[in-house]
Amino acid sequence: MKICIIGCGSIGSLYAAHLARVVDVYAFVRRPEHARVLNESGLRVSGSHEFAVSLRAASDPRELPAFDLGIVCTKATQTANAIAPVAHLFRRGAVISAQNGLGGEEIIAGLTGGYVIRGTTFMSGTRHSDTHVQYELDTATWLGPFEPTNTPYSLVREAADLIVAAGLKAEALEDARPAQWSKLIFNASVNSVAALTGLPHCRLFSDESGSSSLGHLLHALIDEGKHVAAALGIALHEDPWRMNCVGAQTDHPPSMLYDVNHRFRTEIDFLSGAIVREAGRAGVSAPLHAAMWRLVRGKEASWTLQSQGRN
Amino acid sequence: MKICIIGCGSIGSLYAAHLARVVDVYAFVRRPEHARVLNESGLRVSGSHEFAVSLRAASDPRELPAFDLGIVCTKATQTANAIAPVAHLFRRGAVISAQNGLGGEEIIAGLTGGYVIRGTTFMSGTRHSDTHVQYELDTATWLGPFEPTNTPYSLVREAADLIVAAGLKAEALEDARPAQWSKLIFNASVNSVAALTGLPHCRLFSDESGSSSLGHLLHALIDEGKHVAAALGIALHEDPWRMNCVGAQTDHPPSMLYDVNHRFRTEIDFLSGAIVREAGRAGVSAPLHAAMWRLVRGKEASWTLQSQGRN
Repeated sequence: MKICIIGCGSIGSLYAAHLARVVDVYAFVRRPEHARVLNESGLRVSGSHEFAVSLRAASDPRELPAFDLGIVCTKATQTANAIAPVAHLFRRGAVISAQNGLGGEEIIAGLTGGYVIRGTTFMSGTRHSDTHVQYELDTATWLGPFEPTNTPYSLVREAADLIVAAGLKAEALEDARPAQWSKLIFNASVNSVAALTGLPHCRLFSDESGSSSLGHLLHALIDEGKHVAAALGIALHEDPWRMNCVGAQTDHPPSMLYDVNHRFRTEIDFLSGAIVREAGRAGVSAPLHAAMWRLVRGKEASWTLQSQGRN
Repeated sequence: MKICIIGCGSIGSLYAAHLARVVDVYAFVRRPEHARVLNESGLRVSGSHEFAVSLRAASDPRELPAFDLGIVCTKATQTANAIAPVAHLFRRGAVISAQNGLGGEEIIAGLTGGYVIRGTTFMSGTRHSDTHVQYELDTATWLGPFEPTNTPYSLVREAADLIVAAGLKAEALEDARPAQWSKLIFNASVNSVAALTGLPHCRLFSDESGSSSLGHLLHALIDEGKHVAAALGIALHEDPWRMNCVGAQTDHPPSMLYDVNHRFRTEIDFLSGAIVREAGRAGVSAPLHAAMWRLVRGKEASWTLQSQGRN
């Protein structure tokens, strides 16, 4: 069995290292230097798990065989660019989207023409270098069929079993949308507020003591997201408001805060933007998520204006 | 006749200089050094008008007489601190609030116990130093009675006539709320979007070409503001959406963008916050202005967290 991990950030490195213990793993990465050091030194995992493995890596698609399974671990914004050069290698295989938000599955399916699996992961890690990742939260990846490609549930089970055999947690679900939407609503709300305020996920996110308190906005965003999910007939797996209250104890900087601080393009189109698109499909409105989407896009546009010296 | 200008930023300096040509003007300022140079060198106006005047200035209230008229020109956030030490000097006079937003009038009335006049100014200027202000837009100040103090309309007319005699534009109105609310809705919408995105008032603010375009958010904020005004029985003087479309041609950086770039406390409580409070009074909701209010307050809170080294 041959597996390809597409993108080796912290999540991709965790999948690649664990799976390399049980099957043939190839990492497809953007930078030639990244591929070179992975081939030379392999990957080391520290933290919750401690081990080192060797694996194959390439930045040139011509060095890669056909695959039985792929796991896409890039930023949602890079999905199309990352998959396009290797899409033909998955014609007979399945591809898991393990990315943030919603919309990656459509892009993958459009490019490979094969089966796609919805993946939602709660694992977390810190990438210390190209060859060293620290495993933090040892939590599950939820997998389910992507409906438009008619992915057989047996294939989802096989993928989940493989991830479990590799030493990670995974669960196959007949319908992964309740899990995916719980994380989507949580992520869209917390990430956009963090990106616009500059705040880490701190206690202010659950503070509803005054009329100008930020917790009211989080609550309203989450309620609006639940309303969209309900209109689509999706019963949530977990309550995003409770997820927010737990996260608000951590002072963790959400990934979109990191992105705006470094002026990287954010995943807002796949988070707030996805909620707005799905709301439109369901015939309901999502004015608050639309506001967050437009504000973050405006913030991204300000970097271009500034670099043109207009501001 | 004795007039006191409270706060000599660009707007305060423009009133002080022009009025000093026709009446006794005293400037009440926070910094002793500011008072000293104004007393020594007077004020110079350049740009749309060109002249220089001498005037009296003080940072110590004991150096000031009782006044017939005051014009408060501080940031809305500084109203209480600026008025409190001189409030007793206006017991028999009237005070104009020439500040951004809504809510300054209540604070002034509570402190002086005298007549208050709603002021909304469209003048603009750039303050080059303590003694030099450049006059830019030679546009009107709209004046009207502040209803709770039962200010006689004759007093409003007198104040407007005086400002006109000094060479500025002014208009007395039986009801100044239509003018004040036009500017409030415009200012709350444009300032909060600029503060959160980092964008100057540029063409993106009126762009409605795509579903993520920022113009949709401005339009929704302005419509929500109009809805609140209508619920309060206020017919607007000017359409804030048209004001936005004109301003979007200028690339002008709104004052709240300057404030957040310098980590100064913003006027958001008197802009978006005021719309939310008035909506509550009228029994309607203003969820988008509430979102902007809470986001900007969250942004202000992030500076404290960062200076505590928590982020």
